[in-house]
Order: sequence, then C-alpha cells, then structure tokens
Amino acid sequence: MGERILPWRQLLESALESHSQLQHSRFCQLATVRANGTPANRTVVFRGFADGTDNLLFTTDSRSNKVQEAQHCPVAEVCYYFTDSWEQFRIHGDIEVISHTEDDPLKKEIREKSWFSSSLQTRKQFTWPHPGQPKESHPEEVRLESTQPPVDTFCVVTLHPVEVDYLHLKQHKRIVFRSSSGGDWTSQAVNP
Amino acid sequence: MGERILPWRQLLESALESHSQLQHSRFCQLATVRANGTPANRTVVFRGFADGTDNLLFTTDSRSNKVQEAQHCPVAEVCYYFTDSWEQFRIHGDIEVISHTEDDPLKKEIREKSWFSSSLQTRKQFTWPHPGQPKESHPEEVRLESTQPPVDTFCVVTLHPVEVDYLHLKQHKRIVFRSSSGGDWTSQAVNP
Repeated sequence: MGERILPWRQLLESALESHSQLQHSRFCQLATVRANGTPANRTVVFRGFADGTDNLLFTTDSRSNKVQEAQHCPVAEVCYYFTDSWEQFRIHGDIEVISHTEDDPLKKEIREKSWFSSSLQTRKQFTWPHPGQPKESHPEEVRLESTQPPVDTFCVVTLHPVEVDYLHLKQHKRIVFRSSSGGDWTSQAVNP
Repeated sequence: MGERILPWRQLLESALESHSQLQHSRFCQLATVRANGTPANRTVVFRGFADGTDNLLFTTDSRSNKVQEAQHCPVAEVCYYFTDSWEQFRIHGDIEVISHTEDDPLKKEIREKSWFSSSLQTRKQFTWPHPGQPKESHPEEVRLESTQPPVDTFCVVTLHPVEVDYLHLKQHKRIVFRSSSGGDWTSQAVNP
C-alpha cells in the first residue's frame, strides 16, 4: 500500500532481520477459533508479505483443522515473540484460505508463487498421509519434481491485519496500532 | 494424579529440562476467545503445575483482557514450542482465574504460593498503571516489601488439560493425548 512502509511493519521487519541467524526466527503462533467456539493455537512459519500489500502469508495443508476453522471464524491472531530482543507482536486480523479451487487470478498467483518459493522438502509434506489421522506405518513415497505445480492439498493462508499490539519488554514500551475502515493506521502508546 | 506421571507431562518436563539454559524456555503462547468470538493470543510464562495436579499455572493482572475472556469462554489452548528440540505441545483445556476475591482455601493457597515464588521484580509489575490504557509518563512508584501478601491485581490462571497434541518435528512423530470424563488418558500416534 503506497510507498510508505507502515510503522508496525517496519518494527516487525527489523526484528526479523536482527533474528535472521536463528532457525526459529520465522516461527510464530497462529490462534483461530474452532467450530465449537473454543480456541486453537499452533506454530506456523511466516512466509513474508503478499506483494504490494501488508498481508502476512502462511502455508497450510487443506486437510488440517485450521482450514475449516478459518471458514467458521475468518479472524485470527498471530503472536510473534522474538527471543533475543524480547519483542512481541500480536497481529489480529482477517484470514482467508487460498486453495486449489481458487478462481481469482491474483490469489492463484500468490499460491503458485508460495509453492515455488518453498523448498522441495517443504512441498513434499503436502503429499504425506492425512495429518491428524491414525499413523500410517509405511506411507507411499510420492515423487515430486521441482517444476511440478502445487498439489491440491497445498493452501496459502493470508492474514489481513487490523490491529497490531507491539510490546518491547526490554524498553518497557507498548504501542497499539489500529487500522481504520479507510485503511489508515493510528498508533497509541499504552502501559505495558 | 496418583503416583504415575502422565506421559504427556513426562515429555513436557523433559523438554523443559533440556531447555532450562534458555531464558525463554518457560515462555509459551496462550490463546483465548474474546467476547466478540474472535481469538486472542499472547506470550505467557509457565509457572509450573499446581501441587498434586496436572494443571498448568500462569499469573496475570486482573486488569488484563484475558481475565474477561476467560469468564466469557473458559477454554484456552497453550502452544508451547521448544526451539532446540523442535517439539511442540498444544495443550487444550479449561481455564480458571483465581483472584483476590477467591473463597476456596485451596485456591487461595495456590495464589499466595504463586505470589511468593515470583521475584520481587515480577510482583512489582502488578502495581504498575493499568495495562493497555494510554501511557502514563510518570507513574507513581509503589514500594513493595518482600513479605507483603499478594496485591489485589495479582491473579493466577490455571489450565486443566483435556487434550495434548504433541509434535516432535525432528523425529517426525505426533501423538494426541486425550482425557476421558473419568480422568484417564488415552494416546494415539497420528500422522504429523
């Protein structure tokens, strides 16, 4: 959106950069709501922002619970804690799942791009047996060529932030960023 | 309960032990549901198990949102990711807030014990200005003696697990533990 980078995004990108040497620097926790109204929470890998937007990208298997959960309640909150700088980002917003049945050309492109920017090892996981089902002892090994387009189970989850609660424990600082309906952002310093 | 330690608890305690040198080893993410039905997610410090139970303990400020959220929806899910061993625990269960108005002697004791086992620095945070409210530039400094009983804002959150989804990424292993209404636990190996 525009040329100016949003302040919360600037903070997030600099935290990411300062932690890039850590294997878990792109791991955060995504909370959704189950069909029965109770919360679910799991670790996901942050795959960057969708081109030209401030929407966060994650990938998921169409057979995983979060896909149904996103249909039931299309709002999620990511909690991102940076272990070295003691910074926390709570990113609240609307989620959408882009699956293999997607028609929108822009969204199809996001899915294709996410697939090809994933490692072959990551892509292979989408050919594994049904996640969460009783363990198969000798699952069939599926061959996957590096040029092969996304398999049907491969989905992208986009998170469109509407509120970012930023906490810097070391600096004893907390700022809440909120998006207005017009797309502008406000920020307010609050007590930690 | 009883003498036998539950298998999921054994896994969690050994992950905690193998990460004890890391400052963030007791940090995990607690997801709750807001009054409007959308999720909330934040980093919390795991304060161990309540004596003689398998209930996880956390502390919170009575003025923080999670207290109202727990009243609205008394179910939470903790996501605990161990950065070195690549183990994840998703602990789903019933939450309860023990506040300064608690009558039950056992719960009062849990609250007192949690207070005195917290550092003086941690206890001081409960005398700080209202969390989340516009920042006060020069908050009043409150003196706190080490023998002083819990201040009114100090609350304990207990999580009574009913399901634990354990994932060991390196070993490519996932086990779901479920508690039956009788209190017994079953476990099932599932596909990661």
